[in-house]
Amino acid sequence: MPTNHTQPTVTVLGLGPMGRALAGAFVDAGVRTTVWNRTPGRDAELVSRGAVSAGTAEEAVAASELTVVCVVNYDASDAVLRRAEVEAALKGRALVNLTADSPDRARSTAAWAAEHGVEYLDGAIMTAAPSIGTPEAVFIYSGPVDLHERFAPVLAVLGGTHTHLGAEIGRAAGFDIALLDIFWTSMAGYVHALALAKAEGISARELAPFAQGIGAILPALFTEFAEDFDSGSYSGAINPLASGVSTMAHVVHTAESHGIESGVMRAAEGLTRRTIALGHGADGVSRLAEVLGRR
Amino acid sequence: MPTNHTQPTVTVLGLGPMGRALAGAFVDAGVRTTVWNRTPGRDAELVSRGAVSAGTAEEAVAASELTVVCVVNYDASDAVLRRAEVEAALKGRALVNLTADSPDRARSTAAWAAEHGVEYLDGAIMTAAPSIGTPEAVFIYSGPVDLHERFAPVLAVLGGTHTHLGAEIGRAAGFDIALLDIFWTSMAGYVHALALAKAEGISARELAPFAQGIGAILPALFTEFAEDFDSGSYSGAINPLASGVSTMAHVVHTAESHGIESGVMRAAEGLTRRTIALGHGADGVSRLAEVLGRR
Repeated sequence: MPTNHTQPTVTVLGLGPMGRALAGAFVDAGVRTTVWNRTPGRDAELVSRGAVSAGTAEEAVAASELTVVCVVNYDASDAVLRRAEVEAALKGRALVNLTADSPDRARSTAAWAAEHGVEYLDGAIMTAAPSIGTPEAVFIYSGPVDLHERFAPVLAVLGGTHTHLGAEIGRAAGFDIALLDIFWTSMAGYVHALALAKAEGISARELAPFAQGIGAILPALFTEFAEDFDSGSYSGAINPLASGVSTMAHVVHTAESHGIESGVMRAAEGLTRRTIALGHGADGVSRLAEVLGRR
Repeated sequence: MPTNHTQPTVTVLGLGPMGRALAGAFVDAGVRTTVWNRTPGRDAELVSRGAVSAGTAEEAVAASELTVVCVVNYDASDAVLRRAEVEAALKGRALVNLTADSPDRARSTAAWAAEHGVEYLDGAIMTAAPSIGTPEAVFIYSGPVDLHERFAPVLAVLGGTHTHLGAEIGRAAGFDIALLDIFWTSMAGYVHALALAKAEGISARELAPFAQGIGAILPALFTEFAEDFDSGSYSGAINPLASGVSTMAHVVHTAESHGIESGVMRAAEGLTRRTIALGHGADGVSRLAEVLGRR
Protein backbone atom coordinates (compact mmCIF):
# COMPACT_ATOMS: atom_id res chain seq x y z
CA MET A 1 0.00 0.00 0.00
CA PRO A 2 1.57 3.35 -1.03
CA THR A 3 1.90 5.93 1.73
CA ASN A 4 -0.67 8.73 1.59
CA HIS A 5 1.41 11.90 1.91
CA THR A 6 -1.63 14.14 2.28
CA GLN A 7 -2.38 12.62 5.71
CA PRO A 8 -0.41 13.13 8.92
CA THR A 9 1.57 10.15 10.20
CA VAL A 10 -0.05 8.16 12.98
CA THR A 11 1.17 5.98 15.83
CA VAL A 12 -1.13 3.42 17.47
CA LEU A 13 -0.26 2.38 21.04
CA GLY A 14 -2.01 -0.77 22.19
CA LEU A 15 -2.63 -3.72 19.87
CA GLY A 16 -5.55 -5.52 21.44
CA PRO A 17 -8.47 -6.35 19.08
CA MET A 18 -9.51 -2.67 18.90
CA GLY A 19 -5.98 -1.28 18.56
CA ARG A 20 -5.22 -3.75 15.77
CA ALA A 21 -8.45 -2.77 14.00
CA LEU A 22 -7.55 0.95 14.24
CA ALA A 23 -3.98 0.41 13.02
CA GLY A 24 -5.22 -1.83 10.21
CA ALA A 25 -7.67 0.83 9.02
CA PHE A 26 -4.92 3.49 8.99
CA VAL A 27 -2.60 1.15 7.07
CA ASP A 28 -5.34 0.24 4.58
CA ALA A 29 -5.91 3.95 3.91
CA GLY A 30 -2.23 4.43 3.10
CA VAL A 31 -1.48 6.41 6.26
CA ARG A 32 2.12 5.91 7.45
CA THR A 33 1.40 3.99 10.66
CA THR A 34 3.76 3.08 13.50
CA VAL A 35 2.62 0.49 16.02
CA TRP A 36 3.67 -0.60 19.49
CA ASN A 37 2.29 -2.90 22.15
CA ARG A 38 3.49 -3.49 25.72
CA THR A 39 3.53 -7.24 25.13
CA PRO A 40 5.62 -7.82 21.97
CA GLY A 41 4.58 -9.99 19.03
CA ARG A 42 1.15 -8.49 18.41
CA ASP A 43 2.29 -6.45 15.40
CA ALA A 44 3.41 -9.16 12.95
CA GLU A 45 0.28 -9.14 10.80
CA LEU A 46 0.16 -5.31 10.76
CA VAL A 47 3.83 -5.08 9.78
CA SER A 48 3.20 -7.54 6.92
CA ARG A 49 0.53 -5.09 5.70
CA GLY A 50 2.92 -2.11 5.86
CA ALA A 51 2.90 -0.83 9.44
CA VAL A 52 6.19 0.19 11.07
CA SER A 53 7.10 -1.64 14.26
CA ALA A 54 8.57 0.42 17.11
CA GLY A 55 10.73 -1.06 19.85
CA THR A 56 9.57 1.29 22.59
CA ALA A 57 6.55 3.53 23.25
CA GLU A 58 8.76 6.67 23.08
CA GLU A 59 10.19 5.58 19.74
CA ALA A 60 6.66 4.94 18.49
CA VAL A 61 5.40 8.34 19.66
CA ALA A 62 8.41 10.15 18.15
CA ALA A 63 7.68 8.62 14.74
CA SER A 64 4.34 10.38 14.13
CA GLU A 65 2.45 13.66 14.30
CA LEU A 66 -0.54 12.01 15.98
CA THR A 67 -0.56 9.23 18.56
CA VAL A 68 -3.74 7.21 19.11
CA VAL A 69 -3.82 5.13 22.28
CA CYS A 70 -6.40 2.39 22.81
CA VAL A 71 -5.80 0.04 25.74
CA VAL A 72 -8.02 -1.58 28.38
CA ASN A 73 -8.41 1.45 30.67
CA TYR A 74 -6.63 4.61 31.85
CA ASP A 75 -4.56 2.72 34.41
CA ALA A 76 -3.07 0.97 31.39
CA SER A 77 -2.75 4.13 29.27
CA ASP A 78 -1.16 5.99 32.23
CA ALA A 79 1.36 3.16 32.59
CA VAL A 80 2.34 3.68 28.94
CA LEU A 81 2.16 7.48 28.71
CA ARG A 82 3.19 8.83 32.10
CA ARG A 83 6.89 8.00 31.83
CA ALA A 84 9.54 10.71 31.37
CA GLU A 85 10.77 9.28 28.04
CA VAL A 86 7.28 9.17 26.54
CA GLU A 87 6.37 12.59 27.97
CA ALA A 88 9.50 14.04 26.31
CA ALA A 89 8.68 12.38 22.99
CA LEU A 90 5.05 13.58 23.10
CA LYS A 91 5.92 17.24 23.79
CA GLY A 92 4.49 19.41 21.00
CA ARG A 93 2.69 16.46 19.43
CA ALA A 94 -0.96 15.44 19.45
CA LEU A 95 -2.54 12.59 21.41
CA VAL A 96 -6.01 11.06 21.06
CA ASN A 97 -6.95 8.62 23.80
CA LEU A 98 -9.65 6.26 22.55
CA THR A 99 -9.41 4.06 25.64
CA ALA A 100 -12.73 3.66 27.52
CA ASP A 101 -12.78 4.96 31.09
CA SER A 102 -14.59 7.50 33.26
CA PRO A 103 -14.81 11.30 32.73
CA ASP A 104 -12.58 12.02 35.74
CA ARG A 105 -9.76 10.03 34.12
CA ALA A 106 -10.16 12.05 30.91
CA ARG A 107 -9.90 15.28 32.97
CA SER A 108 -6.85 14.02 34.82
CA THR A 109 -5.20 13.06 31.52
CA ALA A 110 -5.93 16.51 30.08
CA ALA A 111 -4.22 18.13 33.11
CA TRP A 112 -1.22 15.84 32.65
CA ALA A 113 -1.11 16.62 28.91
CA ALA A 114 -1.21 20.40 29.53
CA GLU A 115 1.62 20.03 32.02
CA HIS A 116 3.77 18.28 29.40
CA GLY A 117 2.91 20.40 26.38
CA VAL A 118 0.88 17.65 24.70
CA GLU A 119 -2.13 18.55 22.56
CA TYR A 120 -4.86 16.29 23.89
CA LEU A 121 -8.19 15.08 22.58
CA ASP A 122 -10.25 12.51 24.46
CA GLY A 123 -12.45 10.05 22.65
CA ALA A 124 -14.39 6.82 22.78
CA ILE A 125 -15.44 4.14 20.33
CA MET A 126 -19.09 3.12 20.73
CA THR A 127 -18.95 0.05 18.49
CA ALA A 128 -16.99 -3.22 18.50
CA ALA A 129 -13.67 -3.83 16.72
CA PRO A 130 -15.22 -5.41 13.57
CA SER A 131 -17.05 -2.12 12.90
CA ILE A 132 -13.78 -0.22 12.41
CA GLY A 133 -13.31 0.80 8.79
CA THR A 134 -17.03 0.30 8.08
CA PRO A 135 -19.94 2.78 8.07
CA GLU A 136 -21.15 1.21 11.37
CA ALA A 137 -18.28 2.56 13.48
CA VAL A 138 -19.21 5.30 15.95
CA PHE A 139 -16.50 7.59 17.37
CA ILE A 140 -17.08 10.44 19.82
CA TYR A 141 -14.59 13.10 20.93
CA SER A 142 -14.27 16.01 23.31
CA GLY A 143 -11.59 18.61 23.89
CA PRO A 144 -10.14 21.43 21.77
CA VAL A 145 -12.28 21.98 18.66
CA ASP A 146 -9.32 23.06 16.50
CA LEU A 147 -7.38 19.92 17.43
CA HIS A 148 -10.34 17.76 16.42
CA GLU A 149 -10.72 19.67 13.15
CA ARG A 150 -7.01 19.31 12.37
CA PHE A 151 -7.03 15.52 12.66
CA ALA A 152 -10.62 14.85 11.55
CA PRO A 153 -9.53 13.86 8.00
CA VAL A 154 -7.07 11.18 9.15
CA LEU A 155 -9.45 9.92 11.86
CA ALA A 156 -12.17 9.68 9.19
CA VAL A 157 -10.28 6.80 7.54
CA LEU A 158 -11.37 4.72 10.55
CA GLY A 159 -14.86 4.75 9.02
CA GLY A 160 -18.30 5.49 10.41
CA THR A 161 -19.33 8.66 12.21
CA HIS A 162 -17.04 10.97 14.19
CA THR A 163 -18.82 13.43 16.47
CA HIS A 164 -17.19 16.18 18.50
CA LEU A 165 -19.33 16.61 21.63
CA GLY A 166 -17.80 19.74 23.12
CA ALA A 167 -14.65 21.38 24.41
CA GLU A 168 -15.05 20.06 27.98
CA ILE A 169 -12.63 17.15 27.92
CA GLY A 170 -14.84 14.80 29.99
CA ARG A 171 -17.86 14.88 27.70
CA ALA A 172 -16.92 12.01 25.39
CA ALA A 173 -16.26 9.77 28.39
CA GLY A 174 -19.53 10.95 29.99
CA PHE A 175 -21.49 9.95 26.88
CA ASP A 176 -19.49 6.73 26.64
CA ILE A 177 -20.16 5.73 30.25
CA ALA A 178 -23.88 6.56 30.02
CA LEU A 179 -24.22 4.56 26.80
CA LEU A 180 -22.26 1.61 28.18
CA ASP A 181 -24.54 1.76 31.21
CA ILE A 182 -27.50 1.18 28.87
CA PHE A 183 -25.64 -1.49 26.91
CA TRP A 184 -24.39 -3.59 29.81
CA THR A 185 -27.57 -3.32 31.84
CA SER A 186 -29.58 -4.45 28.79
CA MET A 187 -27.16 -7.34 28.31
CA ALA A 188 -27.54 -8.29 31.99
CA GLY A 189 -31.32 -8.37 31.48
CA TYR A 190 -30.98 -10.46 28.34
CA VAL A 191 -28.75 -13.12 29.85
CA HIS A 192 -31.06 -13.37 32.86
CA ALA A 193 -34.01 -13.78 30.49
CA LEU A 194 -32.15 -16.54 28.60
CA ALA A 195 -31.54 -18.43 31.86
CA LEU A 196 -35.14 -17.92 33.01
CA ALA A 197 -36.55 -19.00 29.64
CA LYS A 198 -34.38 -22.14 29.61
CA ALA A 199 -35.62 -23.08 33.08
CA GLU A 200 -39.18 -22.75 31.66
CA GLY A 201 -38.32 -25.03 28.73
CA ILE A 202 -38.00 -22.18 26.22
CA SER A 203 -34.85 -22.20 24.08
CA ALA A 204 -32.91 -19.02 23.30
CA ARG A 205 -33.69 -19.59 19.62
CA GLU A 206 -37.43 -19.55 20.40
CA LEU A 207 -37.14 -16.44 22.55
CA ALA A 208 -34.85 -14.45 20.23
CA PRO A 209 -37.44 -13.27 17.67
CA PHE A 210 -39.62 -11.90 20.48
CA ALA A 211 -36.55 -10.39 22.18
CA GLN A 212 -35.84 -8.62 18.90
CA GLY A 213 -39.38 -7.23 19.09
CA ILE A 214 -38.62 -5.82 22.55
CA GLY A 215 -35.33 -4.43 21.23
CA ALA A 216 -37.18 -2.78 18.35
CA ILE A 217 -39.48 -0.78 20.65
CA LEU A 218 -36.64 0.51 22.85
CA PRO A 219 -35.30 3.34 20.64
CA ALA A 220 -38.66 5.16 20.49
CA LEU A 221 -39.12 4.73 24.24
CA PHE A 222 -35.60 6.08 24.84
CA THR A 223 -36.57 9.26 23.00
CA GLU A 224 -39.95 9.54 24.73
CA PHE A 225 -38.49 9.07 28.22
CA ALA A 226 -35.66 11.52 27.45
CA GLU A 227 -38.28 14.18 26.70
CA ASP A 228 -40.18 13.23 29.88
CA PHE A 229 -37.00 13.56 31.90
CA ASP A 230 -35.72 16.85 30.45
CA SER A 231 -39.19 18.42 30.75
CA GLY A 232 -39.86 16.98 34.20
CA SER A 233 -43.25 15.58 33.10
CA TYR A 234 -42.48 11.94 34.08
CA SER A 235 -45.68 10.81 32.35
CA GLY A 236 -47.08 7.50 33.50
CA ALA A 237 -50.20 7.51 31.33
CA ILE A 238 -49.13 4.41 29.38
CA ASN A 239 -46.95 2.52 31.81
CA PRO A 240 -47.21 3.67 35.45
CA LEU A 241 -44.54 2.44 37.86
CA ALA A 242 -47.23 0.96 40.12
CA SER A 243 -48.08 -1.61 37.43
CA GLY A 244 -44.51 -2.05 36.20
CA VAL A 245 -43.27 -3.06 39.64
CA SER A 246 -45.75 -5.93 39.67
CA THR A 247 -44.04 -7.29 36.54
CA MET A 248 -40.59 -6.95 38.11
CA ALA A 249 -41.77 -8.96 41.11
CA HIS A 250 -43.06 -11.70 38.75
CA VAL A 251 -39.64 -11.89 37.10
CA VAL A 252 -37.86 -12.21 40.46
CA HIS A 253 -40.39 -14.76 41.72
CA THR A 254 -40.22 -16.94 38.62
CA ALA A 255 -36.41 -16.83 38.32
CA GLU A 256 -35.79 -17.50 42.00
CA SER A 257 -38.32 -20.37 41.97
CA HIS A 258 -35.88 -21.97 39.49
CA GLY A 259 -32.85 -21.13 41.67
CA ILE A 260 -31.72 -18.31 39.35
CA GLU A 261 -29.99 -15.44 41.16
CA SER A 262 -31.86 -12.21 40.37
CA GLY A 263 -29.80 -9.41 41.91
CA VAL A 264 -30.13 -7.14 38.88
CA MET A 265 -33.94 -7.25 38.81
CA ARG A 266 -34.09 -7.11 42.62
CA ALA A 267 -32.12 -3.86 42.47
CA ALA A 268 -34.43 -2.48 39.75
CA GLU A 269 -37.51 -3.53 41.74
CA GLY A 270 -36.07 -1.98 44.90
CA LEU A 271 -35.50 1.36 43.16
CA THR A 272 -39.03 1.24 41.77
CA ARG A 273 -40.62 0.40 45.14
CA ARG A 274 -38.67 3.22 46.76
CA THR A 275 -39.85 5.62 44.04
CA ILE A 276 -43.46 4.50 44.49
CA ALA A 277 -43.12 4.93 48.27
CA LEU A 278 -41.96 8.51 47.64
CA GLY A 279 -45.38 9.10 46.08
CA HIS A 280 -44.64 8.51 42.37
CA GLY A 281 -46.55 5.29 41.61
CA ALA A 282 -48.66 6.98 38.93
CA ASP A 283 -45.58 8.36 37.18
CA GLY A 284 -43.69 6.67 34.35
CA VAL A 285 -40.24 5.15 34.02
CA SER A 286 -38.48 8.51 33.66
CA ARG A 287 -39.35 9.34 37.30
CA LEU A 288 -36.82 6.67 38.33
CA ALA A 289 -34.05 8.76 36.75
CA GLU A 290 -35.16 11.83 38.71
CA VAL A 291 -35.14 9.89 42.00
CA LEU A 292 -31.71 8.37 41.20
CA GLY A 293 -30.33 11.83 40.57
CA ARG A 294 -31.66 13.45 43.77
CA ARG A 295 -29.12 14.97 46.16
CA MET B 1 -71.97 -0.14 15.04
CA PRO B 2 -74.05 -3.16 13.87
CA THR B 3 -73.37 -6.42 15.68
CA ASN B 4 -71.25 -8.90 13.74
CA HIS B 5 -73.20 -12.17 13.92
CA THR B 6 -70.39 -14.24 12.39
CA GLN B 7 -68.24 -13.69 15.51
CA PRO B 8 -68.79 -15.20 18.96
CA THR B 9 -69.94 -12.86 21.70
CA VAL B 10 -67.23 -11.64 24.07
CA THR B 11 -67.08 -10.44 27.67
CA VAL B 12 -64.20 -8.32 28.92
CA LEU B 13 -63.53 -8.40 32.67
CA GLY B 14 -61.27 -5.60 33.90
CA LEU B 15 -61.44 -2.08 32.47
CA GLY B 16 -58.04 -0.61 33.20
CA PRO B 17 -56.26 1.04 30.24
CA MET B 18 -55.60 -2.36 28.61
CA GLY B 19 -59.07 -3.82 29.31
CA ARG B 20 -60.70 -0.72 27.87
CA ALA B 21 -58.50 -0.93 24.77
CA LEU B 22 -59.43 -4.62 24.27
CA ALA B 23 -63.17 -3.99 24.77
CA GLY B 24 -63.01 -0.96 22.48
CA ALA B 25 -61.38 -3.01 19.70
CA PHE B 26 -64.07 -5.72 20.00
CA VAL B 27 -66.84 -3.06 19.91
CA ASP B 28 -65.24 -1.31 16.92
CA ALA B 29 -65.20 -4.64 15.05
CA GLY B 30 -68.93 -5.10 15.65
CA VAL B 31 -68.47 -7.95 18.14
CA ARG B 32 -71.28 -8.04 20.74
CA THR B 33 -69.22 -7.08 23.81
CA THR B 34 -70.21 -7.17 27.48
CA VAL B 35 -68.01 -5.33 29.97
CA TRP B 36 -67.55 -5.35 33.73
CA ASN B 37 -65.09 -3.83 36.16
CA ARG B 38 -64.73 -4.36 39.91
CA THR B 39 -64.80 -0.60 40.51
CA PRO B 40 -67.93 0.72 38.74
CA GLY B 41 -68.02 3.69 36.38
CA ARG B 42 -65.21 2.67 34.05
CA ASP B 43 -67.58 1.49 31.28
CA ALA B 44 -69.41 4.73 30.36
CA GLU B 45 -67.41 5.51 27.24
CA LEU B 46 -67.51 1.86 26.06
CA VAL B 47 -71.29 1.70 26.60
CA SER B 48 -71.70 4.89 24.56
CA ARG B 49 -69.89 3.08 21.73
CA GLY B 50 -72.19 0.03 21.96
CA ALA B 51 -70.80 -2.23 24.72
CA VAL B 52 -73.26 -3.87 27.14
CA SER B 53 -72.70 -3.07 30.81
CA ALA B 54 -73.04 -5.97 33.28
CA GLY B 55 -73.85 -5.45 36.97
CA THR B 56 -71.83 -8.42 38.21
CA ALA B 57 -68.95 -10.55 36.95
CA GLU B 58 -71.21 -13.64 36.77
CA GLU B 59 -73.78 -11.73 34.73
CA ALA B 60 -70.99 -10.54 32.43
CA VAL B 61 -69.59 -14.06 31.98
CA ALA B 62 -73.05 -15.54 31.35
CA ALA B 63 -73.65 -13.05 28.51
CA SER B 64 -70.92 -14.35 26.17
CA GLU B 65 -69.31 -17.43 24.63
CA LEU B 66 -65.82 -16.14 25.38
CA THR B 67 -64.60 -14.23 28.43
CA VAL B 68 -61.37 -12.24 28.24
CA VAL B 69 -59.92 -11.16 31.56
CA CYS B 70 -57.19 -8.53 31.81
CA VAL B 71 -56.42 -7.16 35.27
CA VAL B 72 -53.26 -6.21 37.15
CA ASN B 73 -52.15 -9.74 38.13
CA TYR B 74 -53.52 -13.22 38.95
CA ASP B 75 -54.28 -12.28 42.55
CA ALA B 76 -56.74 -9.84 41.00
CA SER B 77 -58.06 -12.27 38.38
CA ASP B 78 -58.46 -15.00 41.04
CA ALA B 79 -60.47 -12.54 43.17
CA VAL B 80 -62.83 -12.06 40.21
CA LEU B 81 -62.98 -15.62 38.84
CA ARG B 82 -62.66 -17.95 41.83
CA ARG B 83 -66.11 -17.30 43.28
CA ALA B 84 -68.89 -19.92 43.17
CA GLU B 85 -71.25 -17.68 41.15
CA VAL B 86 -68.62 -16.93 38.49
CA GLU B 87 -67.44 -20.55 38.39
CA ALA B 88 -71.03 -21.68 37.78
CA ALA B 89 -71.50 -19.08 35.03
CA LEU B 90 -68.19 -20.04 33.34
CA LYS B 91 -68.94 -23.78 33.26
CA GLY B 92 -68.88 -24.98 29.62
CA ARG B 93 -67.65 -21.58 28.39
CA ALA B 94 -64.24 -20.38 27.27
CA LEU B 95 -61.87 -18.12 29.17
CA VAL B 96 -58.74 -16.34 27.93
CA ASN B 97 -56.64 -14.73 30.65
CA LEU B 98 -54.53 -11.92 29.17
CA THR B 99 -53.39 -10.76 32.60
CA ALA B 100 -49.59 -10.70 33.06
CA ASP B 101 -48.18 -12.96 35.77
CA SER B 102 -45.82 -15.90 36.21
CA PRO B 103 -46.05 -19.35 34.56
CA ASP B 104 -46.96 -21.05 37.86
CA ARG B 105 -50.06 -18.87 38.14
CA ALA B 106 -51.08 -19.84 34.59
CA ARG B 107 -50.69 -23.52 35.54
CA SER B 108 -52.70 -23.05 38.75
CA THR B 109 -55.44 -21.30 36.78
CA ALA B 110 -55.54 -24.14 34.25
CA ALA B 111 -56.00 -26.64 37.09
CA TRP B 112 -58.81 -24.55 38.54
CA ALA B 113 -60.43 -24.22 35.10
CA ALA B 114 -60.31 -27.99 34.51
CA GLU B 115 -61.93 -28.56 37.91
CA HIS B 116 -64.82 -26.25 36.99
CA GLY B 117 -65.36 -27.36 33.39
CA VAL B 118 -63.99 -24.13 31.92
CA GLU B 119 -62.13 -24.18 28.61
CA TYR B 120 -58.96 -22.22 29.34
CA LEU B 121 -56.37 -20.47 27.23
CA ASP B 122 -53.59 -18.44 28.79
CA GLY B 123 -52.14 -15.42 27.06
CA ALA B 124 -50.14 -12.24 27.36
CA ILE B 125 -49.97 -8.92 25.55
CA MET B 126 -46.42 -7.82 24.77
CA THR B 127 -47.26 -4.25 23.74
CA ALA B 128 -48.85 -1.25 25.47
CA ALA B 129 -52.56 -0.35 25.39
CA PRO B 130 -52.29 2.16 22.50
CA SER B 131 -51.09 -0.69 20.24
CA ILE B 132 -54.40 -2.56 20.56
CA GLY B 133 -56.33 -2.56 17.28
CA THR B 134 -53.17 -1.63 15.35
CA PRO B 135 -50.62 -3.80 13.47
CA GLU B 136 -48.12 -3.18 16.31
CA ALA B 137 -50.00 -5.26 18.90
CA VAL B 138 -48.33 -8.53 19.91
CA PHE B 139 -50.37 -11.30 21.56
CA ILE B 140 -49.04 -14.68 22.65
CA TYR B 141 -51.04 -17.70 23.83
CA SER B 142 -50.57 -21.17 25.20
CA GLY B 143 -52.95 -24.00 26.02
CA PRO B 144 -55.28 -26.19 23.93
CA VAL B 145 -54.59 -25.69 20.21
CA ASP B 146 -58.22 -26.30 19.20
CA LEU B 147 -59.45 -23.69 21.67
CA HIS B 148 -57.01 -21.15 20.24
CA GLU B 149 -58.06 -22.00 16.68
CA ARG B 150 -61.77 -21.67 17.56
CA PHE B 151 -61.40 -18.13 18.92
CA ALA B 152 -58.50 -16.94 16.72
CA PRO B 153 -60.85 -15.05 14.33
CA VAL B 154 -62.50 -12.97 17.07
CA LEU B 155 -59.17 -12.38 18.86
CA ALA B 156 -57.72 -11.23 15.53
CA VAL B 157 -59.95 -8.12 15.66
CA LEU B 158 -57.65 -6.92 18.46
CA GLY B 159 -55.05 -6.30 15.74
CA GLY B 160 -51.38 -7.17 15.39
CA THR B 161 -49.91 -10.65 15.62
CA HIS B 162 -51.34 -13.57 17.60
CA THR B 163 -48.96 -16.47 18.17
CA HIS B 164 -49.81 -19.80 19.78
CA LEU B 165 -46.62 -20.95 21.55
CA GLY B 166 -47.63 -24.47 22.54
CA ALA B 167 -50.09 -26.61 24.45
CA GLU B 168 -48.24 -26.35 27.78
CA ILE B 169 -50.31 -23.68 29.53
CA GLY B 170 -47.34 -21.91 31.16
CA ARG B 171 -45.47 -21.13 27.94
CA ALA B 172 -47.07 -17.77 27.12
CA ALA B 173 -46.36 -16.55 30.66
CA GLY B 174 -42.80 -17.93 30.41
CA PHE B 175 -42.17 -15.96 27.22
CA ASP B 176 -43.89 -12.93 28.72
CA ILE B 177 -41.79 -12.98 31.90
CA ALA B 178 -38.53 -13.47 29.99
CA LEU B 179 -39.37 -10.60 27.63
CA LEU B 180 -40.44 -8.31 30.46
CA ASP B 181 -37.16 -9.19 32.16
CA ILE B 182 -35.33 -7.78 29.12
CA PHE B 183 -37.65 -4.78 28.91
CA TRP B 184 -37.52 -3.67 32.55
CA THR B 185 -33.81 -4.33 32.99
CA SER B 186 -33.10 -2.25 29.87
CA MET B 187 -35.32 0.50 31.23
CA ALA B 188 -33.47 0.36 34.57
CA GLY B 189 -30.21 0.82 32.67
CA TYR B 190 -31.63 3.70 30.67
CA VAL B 191 -32.91 5.69 33.65
CA HIS B 192 -29.59 5.17 35.43
CA ALA B 193 -27.80 6.44 32.32
CA LEU B 194 -30.07 9.51 32.21
CA ALA B 195 -29.24 10.32 35.84
CA LEU B 196 -25.51 9.73 35.27
CA ALA B 197 -25.49 11.82 32.09
CA LYS B 198 -27.30 14.69 33.83
CA ALA B 199 -24.73 14.65 36.63
CA GLU B 200 -22.06 14.98 33.90
CA GLY B 201 -23.86 17.94 32.35
CA ILE B 202 -25.31 15.93 29.45
CA SER B 203 -29.05 16.38 28.84
CA ALA B 204 -31.32 13.47 27.99
CA ARG B 205 -32.04 15.12 24.66
CA GLU B 206 -28.30 15.08 23.84
CA LEU B 207 -27.91 11.48 24.94
CA ALA B 208 -31.05 10.11 23.25
CA PRO B 209 -29.73 9.88 19.64
CA PHE B 210 -26.73 7.86 20.84
CA ALA B 211 -28.97 5.77 23.10
CA GLN B 212 -31.02 4.99 20.00
CA GLY B 213 -27.80 3.81 18.38
CA ILE B 214 -27.21 1.43 21.28
CA GLY B 215 -30.83 0.26 21.02
CA ALA B 216 -30.37 -0.36 17.31
CA ILE B 217 -27.48 -2.79 17.82
CA LEU B 218 -29.29 -4.85 20.49
CA PRO B 219 -31.56 -6.98 18.24
CA ALA B 220 -28.64 -8.46 16.27
CA LEU B 221 -26.71 -9.12 19.49
CA PHE B 222 -29.79 -10.79 21.00
CA THR B 223 -29.82 -13.23 18.09
CA GLU B 224 -26.06 -13.80 18.19
CA PHE B 225 -25.99 -14.45 21.95
CA ALA B 226 -29.03 -16.73 21.68
CA GLU B 227 -27.08 -18.91 19.22
CA ASP B 228 -24.02 -18.82 21.51
CA PHE B 229 -26.18 -19.90 24.46
CA ASP B 230 -28.12 -22.69 22.72
CA SER B 231 -24.93 -24.07 21.16
CA GLY B 232 -22.84 -23.68 24.33
CA SER B 233 -20.10 -21.81 22.44
CA TYR B 234 -20.19 -18.66 24.65
CA SER B 235 -17.88 -16.90 22.21
CA GLY B 236 -15.93 -13.95 23.62
CA ALA B 237 -13.93 -13.16 20.50
CA ILE B 238 -15.50 -9.70 20.10
CA ASN B 239 -16.41 -8.72 23.63
CA PRO B 240 -14.81 -10.86 26.36
CA LEU B 241 -16.21 -10.56 29.89
CA ALA B 242 -12.76 -9.62 31.23
CA SER B 243 -12.89 -6.35 29.29
CA GLY B 244 -16.63 -5.79 29.76
CA VAL B 245 -16.35 -5.90 33.54
CA SER B 246 -13.89 -3.01 33.42
CA THR B 247 -16.61 -0.90 31.77
CA MET B 248 -19.17 -1.91 34.40
CA ALA B 249 -16.77 -0.78 37.12
CA HIS B 250 -16.36 2.59 35.36
CA VAL B 251 -20.14 3.04 35.32
CA VAL B 252 -20.43 2.26 39.04
CA HIS B 253 -17.46 4.50 39.89
CA THR B 254 -18.70 7.47 37.87
CA ALA B 255 -22.31 7.21 39.08
CA GLU B 256 -21.40 6.76 42.73
CA SER B 257 -18.91 9.66 42.53
CA HIS B 258 -22.03 11.76 41.81
CA GLY B 259 -24.00 10.14 44.68
CA ILE B 260 -26.12 8.05 42.27
CA GLU B 261 -27.17 4.68 43.68
CA SER B 262 -25.97 1.94 41.33
CA GLY B 263 -27.43 -1.30 42.65
CA VAL B 264 -28.45 -2.57 39.22
CA MET B 265 -24.97 -2.22 37.70
CA ARG B 266 -23.34 -3.43 40.93
CA ALA B 267 -25.40 -6.64 40.61
CA ALA B 268 -24.44 -7.02 36.94
CA GLU B 269 -20.77 -6.40 37.76
CA GLY B 270 -20.95 -8.90 40.64
CA LEU B 271 -22.35 -11.61 38.38
CA THR B 272 -19.66 -10.88 35.81
CA ARG B 273 -16.82 -10.95 38.37
CA ARG B 274 -18.15 -14.24 39.74
CA THR B 275 -18.28 -15.68 36.20
CA ILE B 276 -14.72 -14.52 35.49
CA ALA B 277 -13.57 -16.05 38.80
CA LEU B 278 -15.10 -19.34 37.66
CA GLY B 279 -12.62 -19.26 34.77
CA HIS B 280 -14.72 -17.66 32.02
CA GLY B 281 -13.09 -14.25 31.54
CA ALA B 282 -12.30 -14.96 27.88
CA ASP B 283 -15.91 -15.96 27.17
CA GLY B 284 -18.64 -13.65 25.94
CA VAL B 285 -21.83 -12.29 27.45
CA SER B 286 -23.80 -15.50 26.84
CA ARG B 287 -21.62 -17.30 29.44
CA LEU B 288 -23.37 -15.21 32.11
CA ALA B 289 -26.66 -16.91 31.22
CA GLU B 290 -25.07 -20.33 31.60
CA VAL B 291 -23.66 -19.45 35.04
CA LEU B 292 -27.02 -17.97 36.13
CA GLY B 293 -28.76 -21.19 35.12
CA ARG B 294 -26.37 -23.60 36.93
CA ARG B 295 -27.86 -25.87 39.59
